[in-house]
Amino acid sequence: MDFSFDEQTTALIAKARRFVEERVLPAEPVLDAQLAQSPEEWTVRPIVRDLQREARAEGLWNLFLPGAHGAGLTNLQYAPVAEVTGWSTRLAPPAFNCAAPDTGNMEVLNDFGTPEQKDAWLRPLLDAEIRSAFCMTEPDVASSDATNIATRIGRDGRDYVVSGRKWWSTGAMNPDAKIFIVMGKTDPDADRHRQQSMILVPRDTPGVRIVRPLTVFGYDDRDHGGHAEIVFDDVRVPAANLICGEGDGFAIAQARLGPGRIHHCMRALGTGERALALMIERAGDRHAFGRPLADQGVIREWIAEARITLESLRLLVLKTAWLMDTVGNRKAMTEIQAIKIAVPRAVQQILDRAIQVHGGAGVSSDTPLAEMYAGLRSLRLADGPDEVHLSSLGRAQLKG
Amino acid sequence: MDFSFDEQTTALIAKARRFVEERVLPAEPVLDAQLAQSPEEWTVRPIVRDLQREARAEGLWNLFLPGAHGAGLTNLQYAPVAEVTGWSTRLAPPAFNCAAPDTGNMEVLNDFGTPEQKDAWLRPLLDAEIRSAFCMTEPDVASSDATNIATRIGRDGRDYVVSGRKWWSTGAMNPDAKIFIVMGKTDPDADRHRQQSMILVPRDTPGVRIVRPLTVFGYDDRDHGGHAEIVFDDVRVPAANLICGEGDGFAIAQARLGPGRIHHCMRALGTGERALALMIERAGDRHAFGRPLADQGVIREWIAEARITLESLRLLVLKTAWLMDTVGNRKAMTEIQAIKIAVPRAVQQILDRAIQVHGGAGVSSDTPLAEMYAGLRSLRLADGPDEVHLSSLGRAQLKG
Amino acid sequence: MDFSFDEQTTALIAKARRFVEERVLPAEPVLDAQLAQSPEEWTVRPIVRDLQREARAEGLWNLFLPGAHGAGLTNLQYAPVAEVTGWSTRLAPPAFNCAAPDTGNMEVLNDFGTPEQKDAWLRPLLDAEIRSAFCMTEPDVASSDATNIATRIGRDGRDYVVSGRKWWSTGAMNPDAKIFIVMGKTDPDADRHRQQSMILVPRDTPGVRIVRPLTVFGYDDRDHGGHAEIVFDDVRVPAANLICGEGDGFAIAQARLGPGRIHHCMRALGTGERALALMIERAGDRHAFGRPLADQGVIREWIAEARITLESLRLLVLKTAWLMDTVGNRKAMTEIQAIKIAVPRAVQQILDRAIQVHGGAGVSSDTPLAEMYAGLRSLRLADGPDEVHLSSLGRAQLKG
Amino acid sequence: MDFSFDEQTTALIAKARRFVEERVLPAEPVLDAQLAQSPEEWTVRPIVRDLQREARAEGLWNLFLPGAHGAGLTNLQYAPVAEVTGWSTRLAPPAFNCAAPDTGNMEVLNDFGTPEQKDAWLRPLLDAEIRSAFCMTEPDVASSDATNIATRIGRDGRDYVVSGRKWWSTGAMNPDAKIFIVMGKTDPDADRHRQQSMILVPRDTPGVRIVRPLTVFGYDDRDHGGHAEIVFDDVRVPAANLICGEGDGFAIAQARLGPGRIHHCMRALGTGERALALMIERAGDRHAFGRPLADQGVIREWIAEARITLESLRLLVLKTAWLMDTVGNRKAMTEIQAIKIAVPRAVQQILDRAIQVHGGAGVSSDTPLAEMYAGLRSLRLADGPDEVHLSSLGRAQLKG
Repeated sequence: MDFSFDEQTTALIAKARRFVEERVLPAEPVLDAQLAQSPEEWTVRPIVRDLQREARAEGLWNLFLPGAHGAGLTNLQYAPVAEVTGWSTRLAPPAFNCAAPDTGNMEVLNDFGTPEQKDAWLRPLLDAEIRSAFCMTEPDVASSDATNIATRIGRDGRDYVVSGRKWWSTGAMNPDAKIFIVMGKTDPDADRHRQQSMILVPRDTPGVRIVRPLTVFGYDDRDHGGHAEIVFDDVRVPAANLICGEGDGFAIAQARLGPGRIHHCMRALGTGERALALMIERAGDRHAFGRPLADQGVIREWIAEARITLESLRLLVLKTAWLMDTVGNRKAMTEIQAIKIAVPRAVQQILDRAIQVHGGAGVSSDTPLAEMYAGLRSLRLADGPDEVHLSSLGRAQLKG
Repeated sequence: MDFSFDEQTTALIAKARRFVEERVLPAEPVLDAQLAQSPEEWTVRPIVRDLQREARAEGLWNLFLPGAHGAGLTNLQYAPVAEVTGWSTRLAPPAFNCAAPDTGNMEVLNDFGTPEQKDAWLRPLLDAEIRSAFCMTEPDVASSDATNIATRIGRDGRDYVVSGRKWWSTGAMNPDAKIFIVMGKTDPDADRHRQQSMILVPRDTPGVRIVRPLTVFGYDDRDHGGHAEIVFDDVRVPAANLICGEGDGFAIAQARLGPGRIHHCMRALGTGERALALMIERAGDRHAFGRPLADQGVIREWIAEARITLESLRLLVLKTAWLMDTVGNRKAMTEIQAIKIAVPRAVQQILDRAIQVHGGAGVSSDTPLAEMYAGLRSLRLADGPDEVHLSSLGRAQLKG
Repeated sequence: MDFSFDEQTTALIAKARRFVEERVLPAEPVLDAQLAQSPEEWTVRPIVRDLQREARAEGLWNLFLPGAHGAGLTNLQYAPVAEVTGWSTRLAPPAFNCAAPDTGNMEVLNDFGTPEQKDAWLRPLLDAEIRSAFCMTEPDVASSDATNIATRIGRDGRDYVVSGRKWWSTGAMNPDAKIFIVMGKTDPDADRHRQQSMILVPRDTPGVRIVRPLTVFGYDDRDHGGHAEIVFDDVRVPAANLICGEGDGFAIAQARLGPGRIHHCMRALGTGERALALMIERAGDRHAFGRPLADQGVIREWIAEARITLESLRLLVLKTAWLMDTVGNRKAMTEIQAIKIAVPRAVQQILDRAIQVHGGAGVSSDTPLAEMYAGLRSLRLADGPDEVHLSSLGRAQLKG
Repeated sequence: MDFSFDEQTTALIAKARRFVEERVLPAEPVLDAQLAQSPEEWTVRPIVRDLQREARAEGLWNLFLPGAHGAGLTNLQYAPVAEVTGWSTRLAPPAFNCAAPDTGNMEVLNDFGTPEQKDAWLRPLLDAEIRSAFCMTEPDVASSDATNIATRIGRDGRDYVVSGRKWWSTGAMNPDAKIFIVMGKTDPDADRHRQQSMILVPRDTPGVRIVRPLTVFGYDDRDHGGHAEIVFDDVRVPAANLICGEGDGFAIAQARLGPGRIHHCMRALGTGERALALMIERAGDRHAFGRPLADQGVIREWIAEARITLESLRLLVLKTAWLMDTVGNRKAMTEIQAIKIAVPRAVQQILDRAIQVHGGAGVSSDTPLAEMYAGLRSLRLADGPDEVHLSSLGRAQLKG
């Protein structure tokens, strides 16, 4: 057992951290200014393009992707880099071309795509020329239960016809999101987990209708393409757009989830670290009743608890990454569920306390805390609410 | 000891409830539509004016205000009506002309204003012709400690000159907010609680500069006038604008707080009841893994816990109102602090769970939950963070 | 609505409080000494007899019992007296002849007993000449589900024959516990809630075998008769010993539970008040790192939280008592469940924190805290675990 | 980074686990029977001697001690073995001669003792011929603040004279505890952390008076020598009994604490694992309302939460052990404090829930849960309450 990172990882962390500190954090007000200049647009802002150019030049590019197309890192090697990007979730992940949902979509194309699919969509995504969306969740059903999915993907001659309504398609408001991976049912009568398939639907296909943007606690998340409700109204795409075969949708989704959760959790830990840093800074600067907040026992306790939580959960995420690397996603299922449950809610509480220490500034846009809070809060719902995972994890323990 | 409401109160609750159910809740989408039509404006929307007219006609008007100018209700009689308005915090309180900060400002004018001040500002406020703001919190200091207040109110001949920076002046973005009550220091060398004074500053006085609106999470709360940062740059007003005498500011603020907290807490309980009702409805409607959410033990537990919490805290708020009516605000200090601490955080948790039961809809604008959450979260900071009150309440217990 | 006690109750509270402070609390070390002198005995100790004599002389006797045989108090009038006895659960309830399970057993006899049954058992219980036990819980089944009860009560000519195994029969180790009320099934094929009956089994009936005492966190609770495991091995009693008719057992048990929970919860609040008082005293006396514990923010927060919790839950218990008095137990079901869930766990936490403030003394016998904790902890299991009640309360809310 | 144990450790864990399962767990009722046979004695029971013989023969002996006198394991190698012993804290640690406080005392003698001290006390302790006690905590002061210690160790010619009162001297009721390590002040005027010294006081020295045993909740912990209050009344021992020099007491205590906390925390995790295993077993076996407890969502959630907590905290303890091995105790201070705070309270909650699932059996002696709970609860007070460590950890974070 060894808790130190290997040399390559240590160097990468240092490089990423320097980039985030020196380039990304100072760029946050620039992003705000650019957003204010064109409040109606959903496209990537110029500052993101600038940062992408720099990050790519420094080798901080596509680090999430194992194998030849990516940086060839293991999950365990990438995880601490993902944490660093969590300090600025609005800017660092896109700067490194490591932002969801593009990462998951690129993984799907990389692992399951045909050469033609890769050439058409993976290559431009790896170059950040285009963006993408993942259309899974539906407004009318509890999507944590995949058998509920109502979208149909029906074979019709040489085509498939996609019909259904999706929402929370993150990034899809951005017109540069040129490709949507859509989950739907090809065979509602098949076995529970063989009913679903995934298919590539180009944005400009007739019948694709972007209904509206959704907000998260008042935020439209415009800078990373928002969250769309989309109707697929008899959308016809070539059969070659299917990813793998009919009935493979559930398995692909599962494969996509493992790394996605590692990434989300590590970024969340980075967010938690930033919240803790802000809380510490504020506690030292701010005075009430004649002494700094740092002298108040309750605030010291919050700081200590945040440190304890971040340390223990980081180890659990790293171990999960290590398990995925060494024994595979399936055998790491308990750990993957565990981090999915434990990390977002823990960071949510750290953010809540950081907000409390900041007073009114904490809920406003003068600190990044409230927006981070909204993002973290949603994580507890994305890919199924905590309770579904708790119940599943508990059942697995009961089976032994 | 008797836990039943008197007849007048029972009738009033029934009338208010009917009005909220039949008129206010159906008006919420109307408000949203009117807001979407003029997204840049900060004024009261037409639907609010409509509701005000109807409510006034039904006698649901100025119920918060004791005495001749108001409805003559006790705190204990008004409290359950305030709860009913908490079901729709955006619409019901303004419809009844019972919305903060106007309520507190009207109380101040009613209790401490000169006839001239009343005539100029109280009368139009009671008629909802104008709105008002309360300028207390400052961005640069911990305002929960009143001695920190940096705004100066200096005598100069027949005038006072006000200089300082305020924020979280709720309602002040609305151009109809014609009058600001400003807290500042007239004598920084006086005793700790005699340094502060309150003064009336008309909005259009030279030197008053609305700097910007603040957001709460991502909400600008445009429908009730937002929250402004305001600079007072050598603002000169007649000496007659002072409320009471120099040094009375802290005492007036304290007098204002007691009823304000009752109102806030009762409204919060109404918000909690609505969240619980939505949670129950959703749990019955939504199915996952072959059965309604209502069959899941965890969700039943959340519902039970919400019911228990709302019942016990409601009693504590009502007892606090009763104490204020019978022995006065000062002797009800422990209870006032207790509800200020306990109610918002409890309702915050109920809202968080209601959001969780609603999945993505919960954080979006498709339910009122996320916006209610943002409002409740801010209550834990307004008038001093929970921790200041906990510490103070604890110290009082230690003294015996 | 009126939160003040009536005059009679106010006077009774004052008298009870004085008795507990002046007579009961100083008697605690006397009880310890008497227990140490005869460590093997399970009988009531002399100090209890002394206190009973004094309390009876002062009119502090059988206050729990409404109607002619008792003091004629309502639940709402008795509740605050029960709270006072919770300051010393080992001594005050027996001193006032208001200790469980005798109270519940006397209620059953008073409400459902025949004149002969009353004469034989109720009268000596009211005079504290004998004690009693309630034999309901069984070791082999989840007794919160009454249909699980395995003890059989079979008619045989003019007798009933009782067979089964019971445990947690509180008080039954005391040889003076002359009468056991036993719950068993007379007809396992009847409707779910008509299978059970209750029957009076005198202790010295052949076939009654006290198997062993049970401990609660190491305590044998010897001073109030311990907790017994009892085997009923074809125990034959006259048919006249049945309470009401066959199939009435469940209904009697339900009737017994309502007041029992009020009593338990009010006593628990008294225990919580004592824990808080001890915590406050300790925080003032004890110094660490150069200042009293009272100066530590965390301890002040615990004290404040305890005060808030006790105030709000007390109101809920009192309202429940008022509901039982005015609309009856059945309509107070939600509130009865709510207090059964909320009060013991809240007081458990207050005790845990009081222990923490006392350090090693807190877990030892040098303070009453650890023993109180053990008692409170068991309350969360008695009459069904919290979770059963939460689920039931939640279900009722869902039904609306 | 590598989360797998080395081969030696893996083998040792397997061996220890087999021994605990096959020999120790079945010996628990034997211990109970032997305790019942001689309820007044405080000595080690025969079954412990038997297990010690067997464990030693298998090489499961003195594993806690690094270096030549012990097994030569690192902290990281010993930690998982300590966890295994936590499944039966009453039997496994003494069986392996790895029970506190002997382990800490042996470490002190091993690291700081003179050859004569080692020969006299370390050797027989390593052979389990005698037991020992550590006399640090005092009843009259907050001992978490070492400057509070009131016991005096005064030089008088060739002797030291020890005067003071200690309590919570674990193991000291056992007459075989032949040697006490006593902490006291040699120079109250020295620097804060140079005032204290440690000295060896043989049990039979004149002036040593065992005042009484203390209980933890209702347990006297007789099987491992109980917890004594001890008066040292001008106890005279040779100057050669001092451990290291005058003023070294605080440093020795600090050195003793690091490994002690690792051991305590790992054992606590083992206890938590056993509680979880019992909870899982019970949930599968027990039925209520027509289905096994395992089908109840709340219980599944508890099981899932326990698994998540145990996994993440185990990693934190193991990392702490690794840090102590690689960078030393001082640099691992934050982590050592973190586990001291986080592990006992987490396992306390798991035990509380396991008790809840077991109903009455949970608080009785029919399961090991209540006794384990009492032990875990005390851990939160031993070596300073959680709050002292939280405050200290928080302060360290604030300093950066």
